[in-house]
Amino acid sequence: MTFREDGQAALEWAARYLERVGELPVLARVHPGELRSRLPPSPPERGEPFADVLRDLDEVLLPAVTHWQSPRFFAYFANSAPEPGILAELLAATLNSVAFLWRTSPAATELEALTLDWTAQLLGLPEGWHGHIEDSASVSTIAALAAAREATGGRVVVCSGEAHSSVERAARLLGLETRKTPVDEEFRLDARALDLTDAAAVVATVGTTSTTAVDPVPAIADACAQAGVWLHVDAAYAGSAWVCPELRWSQAGVDRADSVVVNAHKWLFTPMDCSLLWSRKPEAFRAAFSVVPEYLRTGDEAESLSDYGPALGRRFRSLKLWAVLRCYGREGLQARIREHIRLAELFEGWIRDEPGWEVSAPRLFSAVCFRSDASDEENEALLERVNASGELFISHTRVNGRYVLRLAIGNERTTEDDVRRAWEAIKRASR
Amino acid sequence: MTFREDGQAALEWAARYLERVGELPVLARVHPGELRSRLPPSPPERGEPFADVLRDLDEVLLPAVTHWQSPRFFAYFANSAPEPGILAELLAATLNSVAFLWRTSPAATELEALTLDWTAQLLGLPEGWHGHIEDSASVSTIAALAAAREATGGRVVVCSGEAHSSVERAARLLGLETRKTPVDEEFRLDARALDLTDAAAVVATVGTTSTTAVDPVPAIADACAQAGVWLHVDAAYAGSAWVCPELRWSQAGVDRADSVVVNAHKWLFTPMDCSLLWSRKPEAFRAAFSVVPEYLRTGDEAESLSDYGPALGRRFRSLKLWAVLRCYGREGLQARIREHIRLAELFEGWIRDEPGWEVSAPRLFSAVCFRSDASDEENEALLERVNASGELFISHTRVNGRYVLRLAIGNERTTEDDVRRAWEAIKRASR
Repeated sequence: MTFREDGQAALEWAARYLERVGELPVLARVHPGELRSRLPPSPPERGEPFADVLRDLDEVLLPAVTHWQSPRFFAYFANSAPEPGILAELLAATLNSVAFLWRTSPAATELEALTLDWTAQLLGLPEGWHGHIEDSASVSTIAALAAAREATGGRVVVCSGEAHSSVERAARLLGLETRKTPVDEEFRLDARALDLTDAAAVVATVGTTSTTAVDPVPAIADACAQAGVWLHVDAAYAGSAWVCPELRWSQAGVDRADSVVVNAHKWLFTPMDCSLLWSRKPEAFRAAFSVVPEYLRTGDEAESLSDYGPALGRRFRSLKLWAVLRCYGREGLQARIREHIRLAELFEGWIRDEPGWEVSAPRLFSAVCFRSDASDEENEALLERVNASGELFISHTRVNGRYVLRLAIGNERTTEDDVRRAWEAIKRASR
Repeated sequence: MTFREDGQAALEWAARYLERVGELPVLARVHPGELRSRLPPSPPERGEPFADVLRDLDEVLLPAVTHWQSPRFFAYFANSAPEPGILAELLAATLNSVAFLWRTSPAATELEALTLDWTAQLLGLPEGWHGHIEDSASVSTIAALAAAREATGGRVVVCSGEAHSSVERAARLLGLETRKTPVDEEFRLDARALDLTDAAAVVATVGTTSTTAVDPVPAIADACAQAGVWLHVDAAYAGSAWVCPELRWSQAGVDRADSVVVNAHKWLFTPMDCSLLWSRKPEAFRAAFSVVPEYLRTGDEAESLSDYGPALGRRFRSLKLWAVLRCYGREGLQARIREHIRLAELFEGWIRDEPGWEVSAPRLFSAVCFRSDASDEENEALLERVNASGELFISHTRVNGRYVLRLAIGNERTTEDDVRRAWEAIKRASR
């Protein structure tokens, strides 16, 4: 076996997978434990050919894969791993950089800073913010709240009940209390109800996970400024929309935030994992995270991005972001976001036009919350039937206490025909 | 452009890189900011061909890469990204799984559990421990200490002054105090000096970062058991050595730990990032991390590995570990570890035999601490000269207050000739 031959086989497998992924059942049709029962309980004594690994990936693992790359993956926040991003991951693994200090990986460190600046420009964020990459919005939020605690000394994290569960997880990890603020009738944090007593930070969400609601960031920023409280904006999903000027209404007030997270692996066409975190107060992050023992001391006058978050060892994640930004350009990103919005509008229209169906929350971006006018139980059963069909994968949430279906568009391979097929399958399953 | 053509070019670049990496200067010869100044300050408006990205990787980025894949990378803990691991990363990026729930990625979830069980068997860890993957030992330690805090209610993390700086970082993040215990003459935590008042956990290290010292885990385990304190073992580097029975002396007492971390991306021949975390008390991790909002509820009776650590979204990291375990097998892993130990012993012997040089700490695994009998300043200048030569990259530490050089063997491409060249270059630079 040689790297070129095995690599050729892996590449061919990847190419064929991407060609046929639209034909595979989207949600894996396996029971818990089924995959494990088909794999040996112990590792091999002697090495096996890579071809055997590839064969088992195809024959044993693939039936247990839920296909995020399917054009009819509409659950949670659908995403995309485009071809330049996939190949960049091959290259990053080849270099195997461990970027805990500038000198251990100048390329990874400086390209990360550059691509974060590039993305800030694309999204219209303020100049001069410090940016780095974490693996997930959960960890970006942990980093931001640790910086907020350091900067303010507060003990409470304030958010709405619609904020992502990772806010509560992060607060608990940091030993902080979470205070939930009520929302208005469109699921936005009610700024008049904000209680900032002992607060370290407010987490405002632009694009909540349930309904993609946009909190009133300008009013929250006013309150934070007055109380000396850190403002963290969770735009993990919807922040990517800012690449389109017509969607920047949802960015109002974000220029006044202390930190902002946008997941490039959600809607900026970058493979997992690539959570972008910017801050106007990098010194608070360094105060929270920097510990430099002797074996990490160098004479280099260059920053190490491990001073800004929980992990010391860091992968060369910026390479894929760089590849995607270059191969798509601003226009390519805009075209994809706009097409997703168009498809979501179309789907929303079909729901509105169909007797017995309702749109359950305002559609602001590429996700639609909807339900049939049957009972919660019937909607839930409908979801299970639809997903079991293999035709598409959607998820659910609760809106005003009711069980609601959620169709989120975010895969770059999704076409109008895919959305139409999804709607037909949903209607079929509801009969 | 097509995926197959671009992929072929990327693969060929990777193959040639791995062939020639031994000829490149190991430590990047750039100044801080030099790479950025050679790249456009703004992203492109229109997409560019992937070939341009690959060209710039080669021409612009490569001079700013410190080559972890070089056979003469001997700094920190040298590591390896072997070919099956690299190709598995290509495949993982192609699938782009986001494994926050079992159903969003049954394959990633179950393969992660399986490969952790396989590795536990290879390393001789107790049966039945729960394992999962984090990105770094730093984050594994955060997860373990969060579980310890949950389980014990203690407020203090106890370790030796030789423990990795990530322990102090983790404790600070969690709002816990760090208490440093003195070490003996061989840099091992002095168990008689343990003060477990208000302790949540003791972090014992098997293979410290400075000198690869092994803390007396059995005595520490006794003290923890008596005081009801969590025992976390940081075997990030040396734990991989346990694949060889003759090195399991360093595992004594680890079977009594509450949690153990071993970084497969350090010395188990797996690309970044792949930090393995096992625990006998998974319920404490779930108590620390599990928050299940409506949109993440499913009827699946299967565990989600996001309940065991800070991140919700999780990459398909187990695929590369699986590929490496299968393609190398127990014998392949043992042969590589044994060769690294042999090379380190050889280098240690050369130091001992050379007048004017000394070994500065016991050599237990594949890292050697040494110095010339000149001043600290001269040893430091020597290090800079050696690294500037491009011939090799070594790092330093302080041992008993003295500046000490450190040569760590961990790359699978390193041969006896590479170690000999390193020693010749070091002697040359010292004249």
